[in-house]
Amino acid sequence: MAKRFTVTYFVRAADQAEAKARALDIALEQTVEIPRSAVPKGYVEDEILGRLENLQKDPEGRPGYLATISYSEDDIGEDFLQFLNIVFGNSSIKPGLKVEDIGLSPGLLDLCAGPRHGIAGLRARAGIGDEPLLMSAIKPVGLSTIALARLAHDFALGGMNYIKDDHGLVDQKTAPFDERLKACVEAVGEANAKSGGRASFVPNITGPATAIIERAMQAQECGAGGVMIAPALAGYDVVRALAADPDFTLPIVSHPAFSGANVISPDCGFSHRTFYGTLHRLMGADAVIYPNFGGRFGFTREECLSIAAACAVNMGGRKAIVAAPGGGMTFGRVPEMRDAYGNDVMYLIGGALLQEPNLVDACRRLVAAVHA
Amino acid sequence: MAKRFTVTYFVRAADQAEAKARALDIALEQTVEIPRSAVPKGYVEDEILGRLENLQKDPEGRPGYLATISYSEDDIGEDFLQFLNIVFGNSSIKPGLKVEDIGLSPGLLDLCAGPRHGIAGLRARAGIGDEPLLMSAIKPVGLSTIALARLAHDFALGGMNYIKDDHGLVDQKTAPFDERLKACVEAVGEANAKSGGRASFVPNITGPATAIIERAMQAQECGAGGVMIAPALAGYDVVRALAADPDFTLPIVSHPAFSGANVISPDCGFSHRTFYGTLHRLMGADAVIYPNFGGRFGFTREECLSIAAACAVNMGGRKAIVAAPGGGMTFGRVPEMRDAYGNDVMYLIGGALLQEPNLVDACRRLVAAVHA
Repeated sequence: MAKRFTVTYFVRAADQAEAKARALDIALEQTVEIPRSAVPKGYVEDEILGRLENLQKDPEGRPGYLATISYSEDDIGEDFLQFLNIVFGNSSIKPGLKVEDIGLSPGLLDLCAGPRHGIAGLRARAGIGDEPLLMSAIKPVGLSTIALARLAHDFALGGMNYIKDDHGLVDQKTAPFDERLKACVEAVGEANAKSGGRASFVPNITGPATAIIERAMQAQECGAGGVMIAPALAGYDVVRALAADPDFTLPIVSHPAFSGANVISPDCGFSHRTFYGTLHRLMGADAVIYPNFGGRFGFTREECLSIAAACAVNMGGRKAIVAAPGGGMTFGRVPEMRDAYGNDVMYLIGGALLQEPNLVDACRRLVAAVHA
Repeated sequence: MAKRFTVTYFVRAADQAEAKARALDIALEQTVEIPRSAVPKGYVEDEILGRLENLQKDPEGRPGYLATISYSEDDIGEDFLQFLNIVFGNSSIKPGLKVEDIGLSPGLLDLCAGPRHGIAGLRARAGIGDEPLLMSAIKPVGLSTIALARLAHDFALGGMNYIKDDHGLVDQKTAPFDERLKACVEAVGEANAKSGGRASFVPNITGPATAIIERAMQAQECGAGGVMIAPALAGYDVVRALAADPDFTLPIVSHPAFSGANVISPDCGFSHRTFYGTLHRLMGADAVIYPNFGGRFGFTREECLSIAAACAVNMGGRKAIVAAPGGGMTFGRVPEMRDAYGNDVMYLIGGALLQEPNLVDACRRLVAAVHA
């Protein structure tokens, strides 16, 4: 028999009997997708069919139950998207169902090489010790390559460790990908030469399906310090494929664009920790961007900390990655964020810095505040 | 000035003032993503920044407003994922916000070649006139290639027009992709030779990021009659790229696996018609699978019919595609479905047929019922 992994679902149900019926339905839906009476005896029934392993009232007091279902590694076929499909393919369409946790198995861990660098690698590349990392973004879309490169220069000179593209920057005529990549890597290099720092430029490579891998390689050849991808747009196997590619060695930053519906409803999708933590780490993201609590999005402090915890918890020996909360970050929030996240975090701050009259000075003040 | 396209959002809000503030926030968030006071004058403010074009109380009586925002084609950079990012990238993470409709522009239509075949092409390939199309799926995962090919044969002999892989079939050791593709194309060909029919086999090519295009080409060379992709897993540009590839000529069937959270909550995501209709047609899917009303999923009759309508409505001259409702389809539901959908539909039925003692006979009875 092959090894099995588990998925724990929150199942909305009025009572134990309804919860059990719904859980058995998930076990069927996610694997064989035929009526129970039509499931072939032997291998399909004994191995492939999902198995209800545990059912208990929701400990958080929501109106339902936690159902843990195990699935065979044989069902995955060494395919990461098929793993996601088993976890939540058709069942994503059923209301009152949420993926709470995933219990990994050896074969799953083998399938996903996991993060190549993790938080330790990102710090080493930036030449820093155990302090927090800082990242900013060049923006907005519509600025020229020269203007964006100037921003990249100033962010680097001001002490930001990673300077990324805004996630809306692709290949617009105002700042084409090739030109922007080259100009920004050079600008960050110039700033490093002046400051003695080791800042890195991280281009957004989310783009046409046939161009993403090519742009990743181009970024590497050009001297970028990482790449950014929005997996909910580009597809969930792209990060895994890049992280496992022996010819690609850069860190990968994931961006949450288009992913919101996967977490924000209490009635469907995933728990925050599982989606942004477990899944992104399994894919091989080294840093995971998500909206911080108290900003202009609705995540709670507890949800954000659950993501950060999932980035670092023991996961079959895979490297810890770094939570990169952003969205509405300001100077005034540094103490609160330090309290919440400690040192193992990447501060992502953009808009607030761009409002300051002197960008380099503003960055220096932020770095000082974070390191205080 | 470039042309502009529009997105109409449902915005949960207590009053007009709150709705307007939220709408202006979306216009900012989805384009420049910096505070309003930091938006550069000139091109960025005049062209790139989203513009609130209309705001009205929700006509359906939900607690909020419909806000129509226009965005510049310049912001897209001829990149389909950036289009989706503008429509709903970061805003997907804001609760109480739903994409209701998208108003296309000429540049968007140029970017997306749209469906190559549409419903007319699928009927022509199947050699039928204006009647409904029929599709079934070989399953479950865990059966051998021989057993799956036998099912494909029997479905074809029984008169199904398209026989697809179950969406969980990838490259499992029990039925590897190459072997299954070849065996099923041959089995369907044998059945066609016996019946004089023109059934097609449609493999699932959702899989590793680096293998999808390759599998599509392999399917074409091998004589398949289409390919199936789950865009919510594989990435939303894969279908578009394949539909626009001059070397690829097969129809594309989209599968809704992992997409549920994008539609099922009233509080986030997309309207059913926009997600499964407009977006999938724009991408270039020729048939779009979604869960039918009254089956084991929660879509309403009205939601399902809105998808079917969006598959056929005038869309800049793009071909009409076919709605393929499935999930819990049974013989008894044929009259109800005929009433609802008329002839421009693809009946997707799997599990109910597999429960029948004689699969070929069961298919024939279904075909007769659908054509009655």
